[in-house]
Amino acid sequence: MKIGILGTGVVGTTLGSKFVTLDHDVKIGSRSITNEKAAAWVKHAGGRASQGTFADAAAHGEMVFNCTSGMAALDALKAAGAQNLRNKILVDVANPLDFSKGMPPTLSVSNNDSLGEQIQRMFLESKVVKALNTVNALVMVDPGRLPGEHDLFLCGNDPAAKARVTDMLRDWLGWNRIVDLGDITAARGTESYLLFWLRLSGALKTTAFNIHIVRA
Amino acid sequence: MKIGILGTGVVGTTLGSKFVTLDHDVKIGSRSITNEKAAAWVKHAGGRASQGTFADAAAHGEMVFNCTSGMAALDALKAAGAQNLRNKILVDVANPLDFSKGMPPTLSVSNNDSLGEQIQRMFLESKVVKALNTVNALVMVDPGRLPGEHDLFLCGNDPAAKARVTDMLRDWLGWNRIVDLGDITAARGTESYLLFWLRLSGALKTTAFNIHIVRA
Repeated sequence: MKIGILGTGVVGTTLGSKFVTLDHDVKIGSRSITNEKAAAWVKHAGGRASQGTFADAAAHGEMVFNCTSGMAALDALKAAGAQNLRNKILVDVANPLDFSKGMPPTLSVSNNDSLGEQIQRMFLESKVVKALNTVNALVMVDPGRLPGEHDLFLCGNDPAAKARVTDMLRDWLGWNRIVDLGDITAARGTESYLLFWLRLSGALKTTAFNIHIVRA
Repeated sequence: MKIGILGTGVVGTTLGSKFVTLDHDVKIGSRSITNEKAAAWVKHAGGRASQGTFADAAAHGEMVFNCTSGMAALDALKAAGAQNLRNKILVDVANPLDFSKGMPPTLSVSNNDSLGEQIQRMFLESKVVKALNTVNALVMVDPGRLPGEHDLFLCGNDPAAKARVTDMLRDWLGWNRIVDLGDITAARGTESYLLFWLRLSGALKTTAFNIHIVRA
């Protein structure tokens, strides 16, 4: 499949590399067409990896992943362009973490709104599915690196888009426990979870962890 | 032990009943000394159960549990009185859920502050330990009702107070996996988790669940 990835950080390049190993045609987008991190990734990833602007990557992808840092997400998506994202599934992996006020970071939007909702409101003709934002990049692409059962969460307004993303998460990445939390407003839940995740990560002294839902 | 419980809702009465069955001397406090819910609980709980005002319950307890609804917590604690809480462990079980703006509720304080911190700032001579607020009342007092391993979280500024609460959670309630998330600012994490918990509860169609931390 043709995949567009927005953002050249650890999340974007890790997901991109995984998709390249599965023989997908992956274009990674950034502000500049000559972005050095993207160039280094293209060289390293091999296969059908390429780079371009945010707009190039969005136009390229049949499915597009928002892997920008949360505070920059809306600007990056504006640069990607509504036309290039129209009728596409936009998997929003970003968390609106604000590091400008010191550590630990706060959320730039939370409680009665979320980044996922902001993106869906801005791109009414795209199908935003919030997913993967509750685990670190290495766990995203290899859930088996953690022992036993653990869960991934998604939400979004379009049931068919969620079904396709669920298939992708299972078949490409190996997630076999995926909880549908409902419409895109549930992004308030998975994004606010980051405030808990940060404290857990500090206590556990690792970012390589996840949660398993236990119920009666 | 003499225990004071502030709040006559499901959380306060469920914890109180459990403590009474362990032969503790439990006084449940509310706004009015003749509160009918408290009177019904005293009759039902038997043993060394009694009722009183918030101040009565706080004065009675060697350890005090804040089980008020989050929005009412600060007023209830003011009524309890700093003098009656001085040098005591105050276990804060409340979540600052605001139901006034419709469902699902939002948090009345979050992100860069928390109810736990507000309480600790207001009662500088008390030892606030945030705990038990991430599970429903029946799970609090009987973690074995959920299968397999799952975790409870606490935080607070006083290590000795956290050690005592950890002992209490293990010996009285049966929690054997307890994660210390650090100082009281970590209450931002466990309270914000409620926004995620609410969505999970909706998807799972139960409030009887918890999470198990899985790490590499």
